[in-house]
Amino acid sequence: MAGQGRLQGIFTPNMVPLDERGNIHEAELRRYVDWLIDRGVHGLYPNGSTSEFTRFTPEERRRIVQIMVDQTAGRVPILAGAAEANVRETLDACEYYHGLGVRAVAIVAPYYYKLSPDNVYAYFQEIGRNTPVDVTLYNIPMFASPIDVPTIQRLSEECERIVAIKDSSGDLAQMIRMIEAVRPNRPEFSFLTGWDAVLMPMLLIGCDGGTNASSGVVPEVTRKLYDLTMGGRLDEARRVQAWLIRLFDPALYSADFPEGFRVAVQLRGFRMGTGRQPLSERHRAILGELEKTLAALLAEQELTDQPSPLPTAQLDARHVSRIVEGVLAELQQRGVTLS
Amino acid sequence: MAGQGRLQGIFTPNMVPLDERGNIHEAELRRYVDWLIDRGVHGLYPNGSTSEFTRFTPEERRRIVQIMVDQTAGRVPILAGAAEANVRETLDACEYYHGLGVRAVAIVAPYYYKLSPDNVYAYFQEIGRNTPVDVTLYNIPMFASPIDVPTIQRLSEECERIVAIKDSSGDLAQMIRMIEAVRPNRPEFSFLTGWDAVLMPMLLIGCDGGTNASSGVVPEVTRKLYDLTMGGRLDEARRVQAWLIRLFDPALYSADFPEGFRVAVQLRGFRMGTGRQPLSERHRAILGELEKTLAALLAEQELTDQPSPLPTAQLDARHVSRIVEGVLAELQQRGVTLS
Amino acid sequence: MAGQGRLQGIFTPNMVPLDERGNIHEAELRRYVDWLIDRGVHGLYPNGSTSEFTRFTPEERRRIVQIMVDQTAGRVPILAGAAEANVRETLDACEYYHGLGVRAVAIVAPYYYKLSPDNVYAYFQEIGRNTPVDVTLYNIPMFASPIDVPTIQRLSEECERIVAIKDSSGDLAQMIRMIEAVRPNRPEFSFLTGWDAVLMPMLLIGCDGGTNASSGVVPEVTRKLYDLTMGGRLDEARRVQAWLIRLFDPALYSADFPEGFRVAVQLRGFRMGTGRQPLSERHRAILGELEKTLAALLAEQELTDQPSPLPTAQLDARHVSRIVEGVLAELQQRGVTLS
Amino acid sequence: MAGQGRLQGIFTPNMVPLDERGNIHEAELRRYVDWLIDRGVHGLYPNGSTSEFTRFTPEERRRIVQIMVDQTAGRVPILAGAAEANVRETLDACEYYHGLGVRAVAIVAPYYYKLSPDNVYAYFQEIGRNTPVDVTLYNIPMFASPIDVPTIQRLSEECERIVAIKDSSGDLAQMIRMIEAVRPNRPEFSFLTGWDAVLMPMLLIGCDGGTNASSGVVPEVTRKLYDLTMGGRLDEARRVQAWLIRLFDPALYSADFPEGFRVAVQLRGFRMGTGRQPLSERHRAILGELEKTLAALLAEQELTDQPSPLPTAQLDARHVSRIVEGVLAELQQRGVTLS
Repeated sequence: MAGQGRLQGIFTPNMVPLDERGNIHEAELRRYVDWLIDRGVHGLYPNGSTSEFTRFTPEERRRIVQIMVDQTAGRVPILAGAAEANVRETLDACEYYHGLGVRAVAIVAPYYYKLSPDNVYAYFQEIGRNTPVDVTLYNIPMFASPIDVPTIQRLSEECERIVAIKDSSGDLAQMIRMIEAVRPNRPEFSFLTGWDAVLMPMLLIGCDGGTNASSGVVPEVTRKLYDLTMGGRLDEARRVQAWLIRLFDPALYSADFPEGFRVAVQLRGFRMGTGRQPLSERHRAILGELEKTLAALLAEQELTDQPSPLPTAQLDARHVSRIVEGVLAELQQRGVTLS
Repeated sequence: MAGQGRLQGIFTPNMVPLDERGNIHEAELRRYVDWLIDRGVHGLYPNGSTSEFTRFTPEERRRIVQIMVDQTAGRVPILAGAAEANVRETLDACEYYHGLGVRAVAIVAPYYYKLSPDNVYAYFQEIGRNTPVDVTLYNIPMFASPIDVPTIQRLSEECERIVAIKDSSGDLAQMIRMIEAVRPNRPEFSFLTGWDAVLMPMLLIGCDGGTNASSGVVPEVTRKLYDLTMGGRLDEARRVQAWLIRLFDPALYSADFPEGFRVAVQLRGFRMGTGRQPLSERHRAILGELEKTLAALLAEQELTDQPSPLPTAQLDARHVSRIVEGVLAELQQRGVTLS
Repeated sequence: MAGQGRLQGIFTPNMVPLDERGNIHEAELRRYVDWLIDRGVHGLYPNGSTSEFTRFTPEERRRIVQIMVDQTAGRVPILAGAAEANVRETLDACEYYHGLGVRAVAIVAPYYYKLSPDNVYAYFQEIGRNTPVDVTLYNIPMFASPIDVPTIQRLSEECERIVAIKDSSGDLAQMIRMIEAVRPNRPEFSFLTGWDAVLMPMLLIGCDGGTNASSGVVPEVTRKLYDLTMGGRLDEARRVQAWLIRLFDPALYSADFPEGFRVAVQLRGFRMGTGRQPLSERHRAILGELEKTLAALLAEQELTDQPSPLPTAQLDARHVSRIVEGVLAELQQRGVTLS
Repeated sequence: MAGQGRLQGIFTPNMVPLDERGNIHEAELRRYVDWLIDRGVHGLYPNGSTSEFTRFTPEERRRIVQIMVDQTAGRVPILAGAAEANVRETLDACEYYHGLGVRAVAIVAPYYYKLSPDNVYAYFQEIGRNTPVDVTLYNIPMFASPIDVPTIQRLSEECERIVAIKDSSGDLAQMIRMIEAVRPNRPEFSFLTGWDAVLMPMLLIGCDGGTNASSGVVPEVTRKLYDLTMGGRLDEARRVQAWLIRLFDPALYSADFPEGFRVAVQLRGFRMGTGRQPLSERHRAILGELEKTLAALLAEQELTDQPSPLPTAQLDARHVSRIVEGVLAELQQRGVTLS
């Protein structure tokens, strides 16, 4: 599916449900993928910051994308986070995700060490020259080395495989500068915002879409905000944007990111499990309070889902198939005929 | 003129021309005021950050407003910066500006010391309770103690005399939060942005106007951006906003603020004089380069003004009067009779 | 007294007592000056940050220094804060303080606007060339434009009148760099630290003294720490330094600076009055708690002073004189003869 | 060797030489380890920030420690960086390094996401309760979530296995606070500073040693500074500390960390190879200039080493064994008898 059209619309940076032992809960992840697609998100974005990519092993990151590609089955494009320990490992991941058929990868600038813009450029240039799959630059200055406008411009001019930027700074002026610097030469280059609180104005100044954590919680609302804004219904869009901030702010600021979003997704009926970062008592209390706040907000919009499914519903799909097949086989052995 | 209607549109934070001895150049200031009004700004804003209020003495700040009120003669409303050393001095300034007939004052949160939000609240509450004139809160977190959303909300609820906020953070999400927090209770409260680079999206999410340094340089353009955006002509507005950033960025970032704007205003034909902050050789060289950049940008928009006026035009009005009186006296002594 | 010897030892940045109307409480200020000198501080430092210089008018700042010079009467040197709105006003203040006989002035880098190092240089160069009195550079990057090492080096080489730096960053490495950059050419240049929490290690790496807020509260202790450290009694010094942090931290961090120090000085028996920055209820509660903490700490060191003096003791000296003279006059009128 | 005595002295956070394909250059690493031990460092610290731990895979990090433990052969204690993607992986690494016989592990607070202090506590508590090997907390606020004083105090009181803190903030006051908070209850707890520019004052206020990048370049000098300071020869120590800053500053600040240190180690005669982070042309030019600066500095101290060894010296030990065995086999085949 690679190479087709511009990245547009809402790409959900989905969290990963974990089972009781802290492992990837495949069945719940598959169920979550279906639910998101059903509610209208334009694409999925595994291994982003909301997805806690740094807390999984390299093998787990691949497994997550594999499951999601399989479950999505081409219904929506996938943008796979591919940042690994160094350029070589990152390019290996690009190869792998390319083989899986993702639409593009997203690669955050190096983190931990704070790099100068010229070395951020050198890093992405090396990747841009060798990747077999389209690359989205991922700028998130609060967590990683910033990617500045001259760097984006230069990379966009030199590397055809670099096709988009996902910016989580929330800085409107910076986005205008990026668009002005890149679009004249690369009209198909895509600009995505990762800052839900300004999705509407970002779209109005020229962004193509967003990779928004809130779309993992209220995909209906984030999608609606996108549609209203792109359709020029600004008065309605303003109201939806304001409501989205009312959800986004407590989910983001009251607890260490992305714990608040885990609670929020859980409220939509998914068993997310316990995160891998141990939480203090204080934080657990905060999340308990947050749950009430978020539940009330969701109720306002009549987004109250049925309670989390029964344990049986959480079995791995293939596991269930095997059980069903076993039962059928036994029935047949006992001479029962099924139409 | 106080108390009439909501603050709306573009209020220019005008720089103050200085004469050869570094004093306020009254005649040139008056000429600048006329020029700005002629080019369509909705109001004037003396003693703001662009106006270098901290570099004048308390007496000079009063003199500046006095001159401008006199010259404006009611054609546009004046928003006068009134921050002084402490609450008592600030309230005295409010009284004085009220007496002059300004539409409102703007008061920056205390600076130098960084105050907690609750003490920022206490400061403005004291002012809000005692001011005879409408007050605009002035939030500029890069220079002064920040005024957070709960503080703005509380002040707006408790102090009728506080009628607006001017926010120079450029943070769209914060502006949405402010509007959501205040407008339900105070529908006439006004929201102004001081960050030119995002004027268009700020207006689109609900701002009432701006106090923009660029409007002191290209009042025609800032006004046009306001009109296009408010009129829903977004494609055109985007182009003007992008051009304004091309002007704003070098004026703001290439030299210490607000030196770049002094150069820019000079290019429109005003003798701004030498600023009070001594400049290094390096900075003077930077400003020389900047002048070329800005001149080219202005030429693009055919904003090339006639050369700076002749010296005679710059004489202080009272000085001119004295010269005229001297000539008349001498003529009389020589026996010339004037009707 | 100007021009004599190197600035050395502990200079107290004293707070200014205010009377019931919020004016300078001259008698209490005089009493405080005496008390500080009696307890061993090497010098006094009016119009510093602890002294809330920005909250006084230009006239009040002069009055404060005048009172203190008069009261000190040459017992200890005075370092007078002389920063005003611009270079011209600052130089006027230098002239004035020079006329009063201060040992030197201290001038903070320009604040509100954040200046580039080269313009900070230009500012101090202009002052250094025109000042009649010795100048101490004042670096306090948390409140004002920072003065970097190359700037200090250049100014020390070019301006003989610049004789010292007072650094409130608390950065030891930066202090070592300053000393290395300046001392070879200016062996008499003085280095003072404004960060009480590291006074001991600062002295050990080569500082000449400190301008420490804590010396306004516990002059005995700050002086003792200085003496122990300079005398090489490091084990004892470590204990005193650790205790001083226990005092400094709550005084500094629990309330907006310098409110905690006002409470602390009050505990030593001075009527400091209510500060000019209005305080919120929350802050008043915080200060109530802080008072208990500080009182306990002072009691630990047996620094419990007699209660604040009776109201009569707080009368202005001239006021008292006038009362006394009035009484005498009346007695004389009644025929009482006094020897 | 685990569990013996307090961590004291200089632990070198050594860089890892890479071969032409960018893999760990085992032979050169072994040679470097010997060289460091010969020059007097008290311990070695693989997988720290200077060691670029984030740029290696989990498997490589284990291999590095394995090689170093093997080569050190008990001559000095090893403090092994053990931070992995999450608590489970980190504890697995602790087990592994414990099995290798390291003295302790060092674990940086979670990075990328910025955690609240209470969750930093929860993270280390989980590790402290389950680790089989002594743990050093690693505080480096410029790269990772900060570990504050109350957190350190609580962990030191609750987890016996947590035996030290390595602090790279360079903040003297904070170090005094840590020592005051921990030492009364845990007199054997160790305090190490990772900020070379203040090693001397840190030792004077009570630190036990340092983990200093400069000790990987000039182990003789860092060791000498330690000895002079601990021996109370402060005048000499001040001079060495000042020189060390002259080396540390350009190595740290002129290029992205830790590229400057790679150049510096290379100047001591080690083939460090090309780092894994691609460098821009600009950065390569900077490093060329830096090399000259550092070479001149080293020459000042007569630290000019012989040129980098011949390729044969860089062969992998096992490779050498295989060559030797091959020669022996051939000799035997030719009838040569060896005793």
